[in-house]
Amino acid sequence: MARPSVREQLIEAGLQTLHRHGFNGTGVQDITDAAGVPKGSFYNHFESKEALALEALERYWQNGAARRAQLSDTSVDPVERLRRFFRGLSDLAIRQNFQTGCMIGNFSAELSVQSKEVRDRLAEIYAAWSRAIESCVREAEKAGRVQPRLPAATIATFLVNAWEGAVLRSKVEQDKSPFDQFERVVFASIFA
Amino acid sequence: MARPSVREQLIEAGLQTLHRHGFNGTGVQDITDAAGVPKGSFYNHFESKEALALEALERYWQNGAARRAQLSDTSVDPVERLRRFFRGLSDLAIRQNFQTGCMIGNFSAELSVQSKEVRDRLAEIYAAWSRAIESCVREAEKAGRVQPRLPAATIATFLVNAWEGAVLRSKVEQDKSPFDQFERVVFASIFA
Repeated sequence: MARPSVREQLIEAGLQTLHRHGFNGTGVQDITDAAGVPKGSFYNHFESKEALALEALERYWQNGAARRAQLSDTSVDPVERLRRFFRGLSDLAIRQNFQTGCMIGNFSAELSVQSKEVRDRLAEIYAAWSRAIESCVREAEKAGRVQPRLPAATIATFLVNAWEGAVLRSKVEQDKSPFDQFERVVFASIFA
Repeated sequence: MARPSVREQLIEAGLQTLHRHGFNGTGVQDITDAAGVPKGSFYNHFESKEALALEALERYWQNGAARRAQLSDTSVDPVERLRRFFRGLSDLAIRQNFQTGCMIGNFSAELSVQSKEVRDRLAEIYAAWSRAIESCVREAEKAGRVQPRLPAATIATFLVNAWEGAVLRSKVEQDKSPFDQFERVVFASIFA
């Protein structure tokens, strides 16, 4: 088996360290140490820490592709699909002991003002994520399962944002109760 | 009029810089520069940047006291009180051009793992904030205005978290639409 390239090692190490310690809490040396490569090699592969952060964010987002694909599995009831999707994210946070939160939310808080490039990519990611949720909401709507008479896009965006807020709170509580509260309220008030 | 003390200048400067640039994105020198005091004076007043961050967070939270007090103004309809409260927060974010977000949310993302002291204080703040919202939800419930049959505390915590998520998204979008979506969904699905 071929050894992963240094670039690949840096992306994986960047994903882990930036996710856990944040952008400004992580130095280039922390990333090269985690990757087990000499510090000097970093700039052979990335122009800046920001450039690596964009790649790490991309990797983080792509790692969720299979989970998001389940949102379009029309063999499952759309409301149930949404419930399973958010439960899957909750299970992931539990497995990570609430130590990382969501990289998308973390970067939103930390980098929206500092990096226009990161902010622009975050906006695209949120939009894509919201569209994936929206398609489920739309199906649920057709089945008469959505209580408020609002555009599916509005509800979907709200759900994504409310989820990110629950993740923030779970980092503080070090506990899954914010996810349970999200599930209880959303599936009692928005969906029938 | 007495000049503000150096300690007071540092807290105000810390509030501004930490709120805008985050904890790890702000150096002690950035804070002393913003306060217009010599860097050497910092450690006469604060043991560490973390100690100042706790004071700045406290100041941030106290600055919202008058706004939160309106939540217990029983001369106003409780649902309307909640709507006004969140609109007030939205107006504040608009006035700040979405450049800062909420310091509570920002610190949740950045410092929950890094600082146990900050995390503990955030947990208390969230709990107090949720209780203030809860009292309104309970009144609304008594008036038959709450649609889901769930404990008022669950709904209140959900609202606080969903709000924080909307603030995150507004930093990315640089736009108030996440607040409008929050208002539309919450006041169409949870409250009657």
